[in-house]
Amino acid sequence: PPFCFSCHATKPNMLNVHLVPHTHDDVGWLKTVDQYYYGDRNDIQHAGVQYILDSVVDQLLKNPDRRFIYVETAFFYRWWKQQSSSMQQTVKQLVNEGRLEFVNGGWCMSDEATTHYSAVIDQMTMGLRFLNETFGPCGRPRVAWHIDPFGHAREHASMFAQMGYDGFFFGRLDYQDRARRMVKREQELLWRASNSLTPPMADLFTGILPNGYNPPEGFCWDQSCDDPPIRDDPDLEDYNVDDVVKRFLTIANSQAMVYKTNHIIMTMGSDFQYENANLWYKNLDKLIRYVNGQQANGSKVNVLYSTPSCYLQELHRANLTWALKTDDFFPYADDAHDFWTGYFTSRPALKRYERISNSNLQTCNQLEILGGPVSRKGPFGDGESQTMKKAMAVAQHHDAVSGTEKQHVANDYARRLANGWQHCQVLVSNSLTALSGSSAKRIYCDNLNISVCPLTESSKKFSVNVYNPLARPVAWPVRLPVNGTSYVVSDAEGKSVDCQVCVCVCVCKRCKLHLYAFSKPYMHDIVHLYFLLKTEYLCVHVLQFIRVTFDPDTGLLSSLSNLETKQTIKLTQNFYWYNASDGNNKESNQPSGAYIFRPNSSTPFIISKTAKTESIQTPVVQEVRQWFAPWVSQVVRLYGDSRALELEWTVGPLPIDDDLGKEVITRLDTSIKTSEYFYTDSNGREMLQRKKDFRPTWNLSQSEPIAGNYYPINSRAFIKDDVDQLTVVTDRSQGGGSLQNGSLEIMLHRRLLYDDVRGVGEPLNESSGVFPEGLVVRGCLRLSLDRPPSAADAHRPLAQQVVLQPLLTFTDGDLHPNTQLEFSGLQAALPPAVHLLTLTQWDKDSVLLRLEHQFQSQESKVNSHPVTVNLELSSGCMYLLMPPVF
Amino acid sequence: PPFCFSCHATKPNMLNVHLVPHTHDDVGWLKTVDQYYYGDRNDIQHAGVQYILDSVVDQLLKNPDRRFIYVETAFFYRWWKQQSSSMQQTVKQLVNEGRLEFVNGGWCMSDEATTHYSAVIDQMTMGLRFLNETFGPCGRPRVAWHIDPFGHAREHASMFAQMGYDGFFFGRLDYQDRARRMVKREQELLWRASNSLTPPMADLFTGILPNGYNPPEGFCWDQSCDDPPIRDDPDLEDYNVDDVVKRFLTIANSQAMVYKTNHIIMTMGSDFQYENANLWYKNLDKLIRYVNGQQANGSKVNVLYSTPSCYLQELHRANLTWALKTDDFFPYADDAHDFWTGYFTSRPALKRYERISNSNLQTCNQLEILGGPVSRKGPFGDGESQTMKKAMAVAQHHDAVSGTEKQHVANDYARRLANGWQHCQVLVSNSLTALSGSSAKRIYCDNLNISVCPLTESSKKFSVNVYNPLARPVAWPVRLPVNGTSYVVSDAEGKSVDCQVCVCVCVCKRCKLHLYAFSKPYMHDIVHLYFLLKTEYLCVHVLQFIRVTFDPDTGLLSSLSNLETKQTIKLTQNFYWYNASDGNNKESNQPSGAYIFRPNSSTPFIISKTAKTESIQTPVVQEVRQWFAPWVSQVVRLYGDSRALELEWTVGPLPIDDDLGKEVITRLDTSIKTSEYFYTDSNGREMLQRKKDFRPTWNLSQSEPIAGNYYPINSRAFIKDDVDQLTVVTDRSQGGGSLQNGSLEIMLHRRLLYDDVRGVGEPLNESSGVFPEGLVVRGCLRLSLDRPPSAADAHRPLAQQVVLQPLLTFTDGDLHPNTQLEFSGLQAALPPAVHLLTLTQWDKDSVLLRLEHQFQSQESKVNSHPVTVNLELSSGCMYLLMPPVF
Repeated sequence: PPFCFSCHATKPNMLNVHLVPHTHDDVGWLKTVDQYYYGDRNDIQHAGVQYILDSVVDQLLKNPDRRFIYVETAFFYRWWKQQSSSMQQTVKQLVNEGRLEFVNGGWCMSDEATTHYSAVIDQMTMGLRFLNETFGPCGRPRVAWHIDPFGHAREHASMFAQMGYDGFFFGRLDYQDRARRMVKREQELLWRASNSLTPPMADLFTGILPNGYNPPEGFCWDQSCDDPPIRDDPDLEDYNVDDVVKRFLTIANSQAMVYKTNHIIMTMGSDFQYENANLWYKNLDKLIRYVNGQQANGSKVNVLYSTPSCYLQELHRANLTWALKTDDFFPYADDAHDFWTGYFTSRPALKRYERISNSNLQTCNQLEILGGPVSRKGPFGDGESQTMKKAMAVAQHHDAVSGTEKQHVANDYARRLANGWQHCQVLVSNSLTALSGSSAKRIYCDNLNISVCPLTESSKKFSVNVYNPLARPVAWPVRLPVNGTSYVVSDAEGKSVDCQVCVCVCVCKRCKLHLYAFSKPYMHDIVHLYFLLKTEYLCVHVLQFIRVTFDPDTGLLSSLSNLETKQTIKLTQNFYWYNASDGNNKESNQPSGAYIFRPNSSTPFIISKTAKTESIQTPVVQEVRQWFAPWVSQVVRLYGDSRALELEWTVGPLPIDDDLGKEVITRLDTSIKTSEYFYTDSNGREMLQRKKDFRPTWNLSQSEPIAGNYYPINSRAFIKDDVDQLTVVTDRSQGGGSLQNGSLEIMLHRRLLYDDVRGVGEPLNESSGVFPEGLVVRGCLRLSLDRPPSAADAHRPLAQQVVLQPLLTFTDGDLHPNTQLEFSGLQAALPPAVHLLTLTQWDKDSVLLRLEHQFQSQESKVNSHPVTVNLELSSGCMYLLMPPVF
Repeated sequence: PPFCFSCHATKPNMLNVHLVPHTHDDVGWLKTVDQYYYGDRNDIQHAGVQYILDSVVDQLLKNPDRRFIYVETAFFYRWWKQQSSSMQQTVKQLVNEGRLEFVNGGWCMSDEATTHYSAVIDQMTMGLRFLNETFGPCGRPRVAWHIDPFGHAREHASMFAQMGYDGFFFGRLDYQDRARRMVKREQELLWRASNSLTPPMADLFTGILPNGYNPPEGFCWDQSCDDPPIRDDPDLEDYNVDDVVKRFLTIANSQAMVYKTNHIIMTMGSDFQYENANLWYKNLDKLIRYVNGQQANGSKVNVLYSTPSCYLQELHRANLTWALKTDDFFPYADDAHDFWTGYFTSRPALKRYERISNSNLQTCNQLEILGGPVSRKGPFGDGESQTMKKAMAVAQHHDAVSGTEKQHVANDYARRLANGWQHCQVLVSNSLTALSGSSAKRIYCDNLNISVCPLTESSKKFSVNVYNPLARPVAWPVRLPVNGTSYVVSDAEGKSVDCQVCVCVCVCKRCKLHLYAFSKPYMHDIVHLYFLLKTEYLCVHVLQFIRVTFDPDTGLLSSLSNLETKQTIKLTQNFYWYNASDGNNKESNQPSGAYIFRPNSSTPFIISKTAKTESIQTPVVQEVRQWFAPWVSQVVRLYGDSRALELEWTVGPLPIDDDLGKEVITRLDTSIKTSEYFYTDSNGREMLQRKKDFRPTWNLSQSEPIAGNYYPINSRAFIKDDVDQLTVVTDRSQGGGSLQNGSLEIMLHRRLLYDDVRGVGEPLNESSGVFPEGLVVRGCLRLSLDRPPSAADAHRPLAQQVVLQPLLTFTDGDLHPNTQLEFSGLQAALPPAVHLLTLTQWDKDSVLLRLEHQFQSQESKVNSHPVTVNLELSSGCMYLLMPPVF
């Protein structure tokens, strides 16, 4: 691409201060994304992005020296659509001249702790694609810009490096880390963000901004700020030019003390600033004029309008060696008792809904291709995937899936996902009609997680269709609420399935039909996917792989065995709650809130020492149901043929009549000798080693023994010793830690009574809508016990099954005659190491396919090696936007 | 002048809604005028006028349909100075095309209750002159626009009519009056604003705006508002165009019900709005588009960008007869217990300082001419009057002299006046040097009101120079603090004055030298003014004209006699305080505050039933000193040869240890049979009749028996019956009323503990600076007892003497030899009916002279008739901006 940014000249013998005018526009937080765009509900927060872009463009035109960067394509895209073509031309010219520069450029600035890499790649693609198609090479962001996320994931840096960014800037890191780096001048560093990719494939220059992302104190000239403007008319009272210049020089010189080069950066902007850009620019123009005017009097400070790219260019020219970093920036604490580790779990229902929505979207994307154009315009109307793509993209925002938005905004994200899924359902129905030849109405039972499906609960005869979006077979249990107690499962020809695949389990007169569907892969000549209308029903051999025992006195789990490997560990599991600090505390007045986790005591309260249990054994499934309290129960479930034990927990409504905020965990206590180590994934990909009260890059002074040892768990965590590895695969992002030898705890749900003073202004107390008494959340942990060298061979595919799970659709009554019962997009399953990350329509004539190696270096003897995939494409143009990983 | 405003076409068969985008920019209120201009101290109030003008011009250029009006030239002038010539050209074009229209156009929007007409004319001249010189005829405001002042003076309307305005709009009037006018459709009316001028000389069309000066509810689209923007993108949530259009049509149609024509006006703006004009205009553009779009569906509402002039033009075209009004709009109440009659007195010290500053400025102006160019550049340096002119102009603002600003802003106004006077002092010294031939250093004793003058208190020999800015002789007492007890007064030749003109009066070891200076008029061939370096000292005949008696038991005044007319009235005078409501009240929670006067009880507390007295009799002066309390005292003083009795009151610090706010009055109780009538002046000119519990234009329901009967007293009030008229001339604006037969009360000082919730956000509790215990205020009431038919012959010149009082300057030691001791700019005194209102340098080659008839129609048998003045001008161009009154 041509070199589009035109950087102002700097002065080699001076301290060059790069002023970077910018706005930070949350894609939803206190207001919904639409409210932010239009400037609606300014009573909640004054913010209107439409006006920001109007105003910035106007002001850039007034002085060619001025610069601006823009970040969030979700907003820019909307604004762009509403502009006249002459305004669009004007903006293109500003971009081509480097006066308006896009940085980051994703649809949003994603959260780093609670997002799955697949959804992050999708949202980045959406934003970058818009910029590329609209502005060409000059619209390409050259730096990643995560100024607000609350801690930084190594996988994000790895993705940014692989996307071709030249550098990465952020604002938030642990206050101890910052202090050390300031002293050592290591706020600019080289991040080696993968231990699998050969350097420099995942190397990324990383800069830590000096003031978060705010201007230096006293120099905020936005309409939302109260700092004194530059008053340079000597006829008016309080002429303050001398004072302003003096203060600025002091700040610039002290900032230069903690950075390595004779260039420093100042972020001149903040949240939703520049709505009236004139205020900023008018004063910045004056600042530059008056500060540089002092050069005639011997000042050695040179101020200029700049951008992160221009600043980065100067750093590169300095030709220094930067400190190397290989771990990540979690957890983030901005003070001794202020660990931002609560949001790893905040809003667990939203976090799950986002995760399942991603799965549904991938299915929708695949079926859009498999069904052909009729998918988008077919018997069930107009279907499309764009709405859901956008809904998923905004849900990656660092105040969306993170759970740190206001309640009404969380509702809006969920509504968007639901709405997106409605549009996708039409597409899926159209596509399945094309593929099956049957135009029978498809029913979607989106509430199966709470055992609600009106069709299966009332119909005497219905078909279940299973679509598996993975590129390899899965054995997937199907549980359906029914109102009978005995069902016959027949195949398409009407023959009943001849071994035990179907069982009705009734508890308290509510019955569930258990099926066990096995999806075979098939090759297909166009795209590499498979799809099943008819499942093969497994003849189940009970307890082939796993055994669990329960303590008869307590009703708790007592051991877990892998029968294949002949491993057994002691395993006790129970539920506890931490009492959330209300801020009334002599060490600090920090309460627990949407962001912050701060228990009042390091010892959690046990909910019940014993569980009331009930057990069920069938040829298909065995379940032990445990009741701990009216608000905590669990089903320990083992399907035949499964290598993972399911712990399906149900927690809520958390009681608050005692006026105590509660943070509920489950803790697994094992006989594994962990030596204070445990392991968590980074955004669902590579695993990172964690150690209690320890940070790899600095000498930690631990001030919060629980919260300061919590880390994000996106898809899995494990503990291990030389012989045993227990991996827990989660169905959503959660926070967790290992605080004792052999122990692993995961936070499941939080209900808090105080705001944590980070801006959201609401206690995290989810109690609206259908849960007036407080939100009830259900989820599933999947446990796998393996030998460490081969554990990844189990948890990699297991986790992908949870991330991309089969979509069930239903039709009522008899199957239409001539219904084609099975279909696969794949001629054969992909090799075990290869994951089909993306298959989606790109434009009319092309599709986007992303394949990735899903094993980390050295984690599997079998799978951690390069693999070759033969893409036999019969037609179409494969557009590979992202370099495939591996 | 050419017809510069280009009004949008209207539709005769529709309801035309004139949207008037405007900003209301207080020339000081919560912030100082400079802070408002620059947008400094936005922590107090978000407001920055520089940005408003930047933004509005930008936005006007984006769409030629858009309109804007601007009002306060004090701000516009500053902004204009800072613009490039190309921007100035752009703005000129906007003005010439009628897209930017000036309304009102004075330096500020003056207060109407507490301003003196002479200062209002000066400030209007300053603003209109700038507009005229900058923009020519198209810059001429055609409507007066007093949207915020808290009640409206008839004299203001009269001035506006005489200045040539086509109409007058305002926003505030009594809520009962508004309700009645809405029912009768009399919110647009013809104000006949003088009973002296022949109609239509003082007739002014007057329109009352529908929402004060705010937009209709739900339609405020400023950055400071939270109303929903128009969300017209169907892709976004909460598309609201239909709702907005519906709400707007409802409002427009109900507004049309209370006005007469098929045109209505909506003020789309408010305090300091349009700092980011894009928000307003973007939504107004849409509003117009969508509302007018409904015409295709049969809607009969037509919306357009407009200005008050364009709206007025349509009203004129309607050719209707409007209701006639001849009284004024005082007092203003916005609810039953919310009478804005406190500010008539608020900040009495500032009110006095503004009044004396006006006097000093007029002296400065006159001496600038008399002394010639050397006045501005002379032996004492560079002197000028512009600074003081501007300081006086901003002091006329309706939150300046009104006393309704924050304390720090009041301090700023005073500082500006003091600073202006410093510049004028240099000019005066230069001028006096030129006129006298003596370059002796001139000393200005600005603190004589509190008996402080370091020179006279220490020097053994000094000269006093008296400059009388009136165009006729005055006898003016000079009181100087000295440290001796015996002085000889000698004339210029060293001969001691041979009759008793000088007396030292010592009280508590502090002595004061009393002189009695008589200033003779002299004619001069260039300008008609006189000036005295040497005074003639009157040989005083004690008690020629007045006699007062005191009750020996109480020490209070008991009678007042005019010895010439042989009148005697019973007269008791005492001091009282009202307990200010703290808002803790069952009728209303309105407290007394800077704006509002609301006593807790209608019966004031007497401060003391008796006064401790001490009396002094000298040939020059007689004084009875009365002590009522440690915080209330008075000197009743009578000079020989004087026709007025001085009541020099000293009040403060008002005690508040009882936690009660206090509003101190003095009340004169007389034997005059007033029948509930009394009379107050309007801005120092014509007198208006007032009646207790009565309004001339509607049937008053009185809900505040005291506050609802208070009226502004700018310069005088009187009570009378067939034989006696007692006139009280004040030295500043004050509030007062006549609540009992024969009684007149005047509020002197206020100290309040609660804010009155009208925005100022501070209790009126003046206690800073040199008065940490609370402000002490001193002032003087001058009483004149006359026969009603000739009373004006006394009070007109008396009041003018107080408004324009002699300036004393001092030189130390012997006079320089050859000092010219006297000089007059006038060959003879002007006729008694003619007042020299203005004499000031206009530009290099011309001066501005304003003469006015100072008697009201029919108030004087001798003086209330036309008079001819022969202007014998030897040189120069007389520029009469204002039509002379009479």
